[in-house]
Amino acid sequence: MTEDKKNDQRECLSYGMVGGSSGSFIGPIHRTAMAMNNQARLVAGSFSQAFERTLETGRELGLDPERTYPDFLTMAEREGSRIDRIDFVVIAVPNHLHFPVAKAFLQQGIDVICEKPLTFSMEEANELVRLTRESHLQFMVAYTYTGYPMVREARSLVTSGALGSIRVVAAEYPQGWLTDPIERNGVGGGANPQAFWRTDPRYSGISGCVGDIGTHVENLVHFITGLEIDKLAARLEIMVPGRLLDDNAYMMLRYKGGASGSYWSSQVAIGEENGLRIRVYGEKGALSWSHENPNILRFQKKGEPVQILTRGSGYLSPEAARFVRVPAGHPEGYFEAFANLFRSFCNVLIARKEGRPSDLLDTFPTVEDGARGVKFITDAVQSSQRDSAWVDGSFPMK
Amino acid sequence: MTEDKKNDQRECLSYGMVGGSSGSFIGPIHRTAMAMNNQARLVAGSFSQAFERTLETGRELGLDPERTYPDFLTMAEREGSRIDRIDFVVIAVPNHLHFPVAKAFLQQGIDVICEKPLTFSMEEANELVRLTRESHLQFMVAYTYTGYPMVREARSLVTSGALGSIRVVAAEYPQGWLTDPIERNGVGGGANPQAFWRTDPRYSGISGCVGDIGTHVENLVHFITGLEIDKLAARLEIMVPGRLLDDNAYMMLRYKGGASGSYWSSQVAIGEENGLRIRVYGEKGALSWSHENPNILRFQKKGEPVQILTRGSGYLSPEAARFVRVPAGHPEGYFEAFANLFRSFCNVLIARKEGRPSDLLDTFPTVEDGARGVKFITDAVQSSQRDSAWVDGSFPMK
Amino acid sequence: MTEDKKNDQRECLSYGMVGGSSGSFIGPIHRTAMAMNNQARLVAGSFSQAFERTLETGRELGLDPERTYPDFLTMAEREGSRIDRIDFVVIAVPNHLHFPVAKAFLQQGIDVICEKPLTFSMEEANELVRLTRESHLQFMVAYTYTGYPMVREARSLVTSGALGSIRVVAAEYPQGWLTDPIERNGVGGGANPQAFWRTDPRYSGISGCVGDIGTHVENLVHFITGLEIDKLAARLEIMVPGRLLDDNAYMMLRYKGGASGSYWSSQVAIGEENGLRIRVYGEKGALSWSHENPNILRFQKKGEPVQILTRGSGYLSPEAARFVRVPAGHPEGYFEAFANLFRSFCNVLIARKEGRPSDLLDTFPTVEDGARGVKFITDAVQSSQRDSAWVDGSFPMK
Amino acid sequence: MTEDKKNDQRECLSYGMVGGSSGSFIGPIHRTAMAMNNQARLVAGSFSQAFERTLETGRELGLDPERTYPDFLTMAEREGSRIDRIDFVVIAVPNHLHFPVAKAFLQQGIDVICEKPLTFSMEEANELVRLTRESHLQFMVAYTYTGYPMVREARSLVTSGALGSIRVVAAEYPQGWLTDPIERNGVGGGANPQAFWRTDPRYSGISGCVGDIGTHVENLVHFITGLEIDKLAARLEIMVPGRLLDDNAYMMLRYKGGASGSYWSSQVAIGEENGLRIRVYGEKGALSWSHENPNILRFQKKGEPVQILTRGSGYLSPEAARFVRVPAGHPEGYFEAFANLFRSFCNVLIARKEGRPSDLLDTFPTVEDGARGVKFITDAVQSSQRDSAWVDGSFPMK
Repeated sequence: MTEDKKNDQRECLSYGMVGGSSGSFIGPIHRTAMAMNNQARLVAGSFSQAFERTLETGRELGLDPERTYPDFLTMAEREGSRIDRIDFVVIAVPNHLHFPVAKAFLQQGIDVICEKPLTFSMEEANELVRLTRESHLQFMVAYTYTGYPMVREARSLVTSGALGSIRVVAAEYPQGWLTDPIERNGVGGGANPQAFWRTDPRYSGISGCVGDIGTHVENLVHFITGLEIDKLAARLEIMVPGRLLDDNAYMMLRYKGGASGSYWSSQVAIGEENGLRIRVYGEKGALSWSHENPNILRFQKKGEPVQILTRGSGYLSPEAARFVRVPAGHPEGYFEAFANLFRSFCNVLIARKEGRPSDLLDTFPTVEDGARGVKFITDAVQSSQRDSAWVDGSFPMK
Repeated sequence: MTEDKKNDQRECLSYGMVGGSSGSFIGPIHRTAMAMNNQARLVAGSFSQAFERTLETGRELGLDPERTYPDFLTMAEREGSRIDRIDFVVIAVPNHLHFPVAKAFLQQGIDVICEKPLTFSMEEANELVRLTRESHLQFMVAYTYTGYPMVREARSLVTSGALGSIRVVAAEYPQGWLTDPIERNGVGGGANPQAFWRTDPRYSGISGCVGDIGTHVENLVHFITGLEIDKLAARLEIMVPGRLLDDNAYMMLRYKGGASGSYWSSQVAIGEENGLRIRVYGEKGALSWSHENPNILRFQKKGEPVQILTRGSGYLSPEAARFVRVPAGHPEGYFEAFANLFRSFCNVLIARKEGRPSDLLDTFPTVEDGARGVKFITDAVQSSQRDSAWVDGSFPMK
Repeated sequence: MTEDKKNDQRECLSYGMVGGSSGSFIGPIHRTAMAMNNQARLVAGSFSQAFERTLETGRELGLDPERTYPDFLTMAEREGSRIDRIDFVVIAVPNHLHFPVAKAFLQQGIDVICEKPLTFSMEEANELVRLTRESHLQFMVAYTYTGYPMVREARSLVTSGALGSIRVVAAEYPQGWLTDPIERNGVGGGANPQAFWRTDPRYSGISGCVGDIGTHVENLVHFITGLEIDKLAARLEIMVPGRLLDDNAYMMLRYKGGASGSYWSSQVAIGEENGLRIRVYGEKGALSWSHENPNILRFQKKGEPVQILTRGSGYLSPEAARFVRVPAGHPEGYFEAFANLFRSFCNVLIARKEGRPSDLLDTFPTVEDGARGVKFITDAVQSSQRDSAWVDGSFPMK
Repeated sequence: MTEDKKNDQRECLSYGMVGGSSGSFIGPIHRTAMAMNNQARLVAGSFSQAFERTLETGRELGLDPERTYPDFLTMAEREGSRIDRIDFVVIAVPNHLHFPVAKAFLQQGIDVICEKPLTFSMEEANELVRLTRESHLQFMVAYTYTGYPMVREARSLVTSGALGSIRVVAAEYPQGWLTDPIERNGVGGGANPQAFWRTDPRYSGISGCVGDIGTHVENLVHFITGLEIDKLAARLEIMVPGRLLDDNAYMMLRYKGGASGSYWSSQVAIGEENGLRIRVYGEKGALSWSHENPNILRFQKKGEPVQILTRGSGYLSPEAARFVRVPAGHPEGYFEAFANLFRSFCNVLIARKEGRPSDLLDTFPTVEDGARGVKFITDAVQSSQRDSAWVDGSFPMK
């Protein structure tokens, strides 16, 4: 296994980050994953609403103090007016800020990588879609799991027809970390900051569990199968007394074309760490993938033995092979999945810079995928509020 | 590991069977499992509606020709009037006959073991409950999976409080054998007889998939957790064109006391062989059990490593240990699960014969459990017909 | 999946048992497994050296008291002279008695099923081989693991050439039950009777661990691969102070034709319950089977995904399919493996009775396989005593 | 899970690399893993014996052309005389060059990270040990697997006494990639360059399989258990005709203090990708770890259920927790293991720069571990040449 030069566009980009101060969760992961590709250098940031922490994080990361900003608006404006402006911004803030931050940078003509869920509402989501399209900018939403090679292989199998027409989807994303009200009393007495904002509608939006992890299920199913939701019936529940947002949710789905599915996501499932799993059953075959061991994919043709496909093997599709970094048997994980999406994103930016068309395999979740996710969250909440009535779950692609 | 004499009441019982001719599926399994216990000898039968096959099966099994009967009514009457009458009857016929056959033998004062689902309707189920109670007879319904030692251990863990108050149940029973319309065209052209009657409402009742396997999910969840369903919302679907009964079904459930759950059962899930799986999450711990490897049980206390409990280990509860036949590491399976239930049933009969109280651990699924199952199937069908509206799912224990 | 009448010869045989009183380990397993086939009825026995226990076991099992015997010699003589003599005897005694008991029954012209290891020495083993051949009797050695359907499938894959020429074998059989000196102080203070005789050279022979479980490794490798040992270098160790026989053993092996292998067996490996595992690597493919989940077999062709073959699937070879009792997804285990071998053995006896040739698929481990096992144990001990020098490990087939 | 600032010394180091041009295997992995820590920047290199490729790699990586060197001697000399000289060098060349390259940089007073096996001979290894000690430099050997958090946890469990005195080790490292002679004819006709030098004694040394992967087994066992080899008996084999070095090897080992073990390594085991596995059995408990899913560790106390410990969980030891980068359930892999070792190494260098003592948990495999590995390879080859005689396997720590 060697580095594939075609995969790895070396022209160095520069980027900025909003959110992600050194004590936070996802910001440092973005930075580490970006560093793995050697394509983009962090040069600017507004890492925290506390400017002191932004400055400190900037110092730790070796940033020019001139490019650490007190707030995202200042950052967007000043970077927007620099000749050596950042090529793109990474938005790693709580949900309520996704929209204003993304909008500010889009308006400056700066490409965006943004955490999920994209926005609080469809109105906001639609505006970001519109802005992105009008400005011909690139906008990636961090649906990380689509960055795993074996997820790409799963999609490739479906596309190739190996499963035949799809009938049934069983997907789930259980976690156990919010079993106790750690948004109030964490271990050691203080609140867990991650839990704090993720369970608070002011920062998280209209849904907790579905907005945080259920949206990954929706995205992954759509990515792998291409299925479009027709209707859904959902029940969102609060299992921990006093919590303000759902921490457990069930859903039944009908897709366009006759397939059906069920999704379960939970934050109160003890023993489940980050249990994203998807199973897809067609008329001719079936597949299953689990985040627990992301390096394998189970695939089965009707009447034949189950096959265990492994990342790095020679029989993989180009879509999957492209994302493989080390040989089969050398596990890859979460950082690599992030890094794979970042590489696709950066490759597109570099190709654009160089006036080349980008490689068709350089794909990543877009702002439309983000809007689709917001529609899904909105529909799920609405159905649940209407006693789990079936609601229109379609996402109008224009 | 030695034979526990207390477990194994040796007084020999005799039994008869209705259905289960030598070419059938479940009848021979019953006979084999019964033989493992050396407690009951088959002496009578009406194995098929074709008397010729009954005679042939009787000959193969070494039965006295006098005790092979042309139909179940004759059998019930004649056996009921013999001095050496059978101690109990095993009913292994398609669903539509469960009620009349069971009723006929109960009316003769003969104890019954009957396949699931108990009956077509709640009226029939209630009548069997009433008859059983009035006659003080024993009535076991063959919810086989409760016979696995590690299922007993799961129940014991819940009862002991190790999981705390239960919050979430995720249970499923996917199979793939009805992916194609083999009820019409089996391999080689002819219809598969198992598929034929199981997809035909005349023989199978109001539901295919839920009636055949979804009912096992309901029974297993109730057995392990003790949870009572409050409401359920279901969607039953027919995935194979032309099929008359559901072959795929989703359900969301609310239990009394605040827990919730989701069930999925399917007969069109390629690659799933007999994938009964149950996961239970409480406030303090969680467990999961899968039929794929029934000899282990996953258990996790909050904040501690997952534990893999294995059948035959010294730390098991008496409820589980009682059902262990060979040491840990020597796999047990489906036959042993059946045989364990039969042993409990026979132990109760022997104790009654000997005028002793039976052991409290000699438990098995009863006619009430069967009626509960019929209520569940009925509710699921009703909800699905009402566009998945939540329906009352409670089972009134009197 | 239905009963295959061709598999299941119903003509009823009768058998006797030496050893296996109701408190013992393997005797009741033999009886239970035999009962599953409905082919042979237990009618005679000398279950213990304490006649009182024999009588009690006989009563429990419903035997005619006339046919419960004080010792095996009396039993062999009296049964040998009855018109309704037993068709075969099952020998379930500690190792030191295998030879005299087997010899006594062979000399009466009675077919034999005997536990492993066959004898203490090659002289004894050879004599049993000679007696069996001269008398044209059937002699099965209870190498149980060859009774698993997926072990048959493994053999079939090798025979079919799917692995190409075999290069490497990695096999092991770790257990943990003798981690403590329970032959002296069991749980609760008393000695564990199983541990007692299995660690005592008077009852067990020249080896503990290799004789008890290493011999299964040898048999299984030979059965699956057909490889003949050329040379072996072994190290047998006593890990528990004061123990008299090996409880841990390593071996390197060269087979005829150029393949090589390593075996490890242990009784002091905590956490290993009954961990028989075999992996075979050829020039074109590889397979692995583990007793932990005996219902699956991993198989891989060079350059292709791993395949998980499952017991009961339609693609299995006739050799494996013949041993399948219930459909895929319904686990089978240890009892069924025993029962499968017994069925083959009984089928051969019935065919002989009826003057028919027996089915070529009705195979079981023979007295020659038993002698091969004794040679293996002897060679391993000898190599270990010579500081692990390579010794001739060949077994001369005549 | 947040970034632990104490773990992450941010002071930026600079490093150079010998070998690892952009088409090679391990060099890019080193660079990527190093980039994940944001501690050290690549500034110099002599990446290939073909200067043109060095120049090209330097350009791709954005190096100052002045610091891309035609050969390692020039690089060592010139870097050694610069004021802004590299802080350390990474040696990623075939084995035959490890010694001269490492020596050249040590002599310039530059710290070293070097691939395994350390050298061709004990003489060379001893000289590197001596040079390192005399110069008080840091020398890390890239025994990557010690960088996995759950390997650290395994070591911590052993050290804590949770296993009691160790009795048995079963370790193995099978691969299948050299099943065919791809060193001569790779896929597509050309030789595989990795296979080419790894099977050629001029570049690889006295052993192929043991030198390449068996040495990882030795290192991992020693790291986790602390056991010192007393004697070993080995058999090294060439399975692919025409190959010059061993591609399959067995070993039996006796450790000081009475424990024993067996190692198997292979490059011709189809279906094994990179199957490093270690199992350790003590008097009180056992553990096992497998590279296939490195995020879990099985641990079992005598008489209790198996525990599955997971990376990122709160109950881990400080040694393991320190190496955790993302929460439990977010898989980490090979890159992270490398990066963890690099971070420990860089932390030590930074502490030294800052005049602080380094953290006691900042450990990595040292030049002594490298020498121990060379001794192991030498002993294995010697034993095999002497028909697997037991040879002294001790490594004299001075």
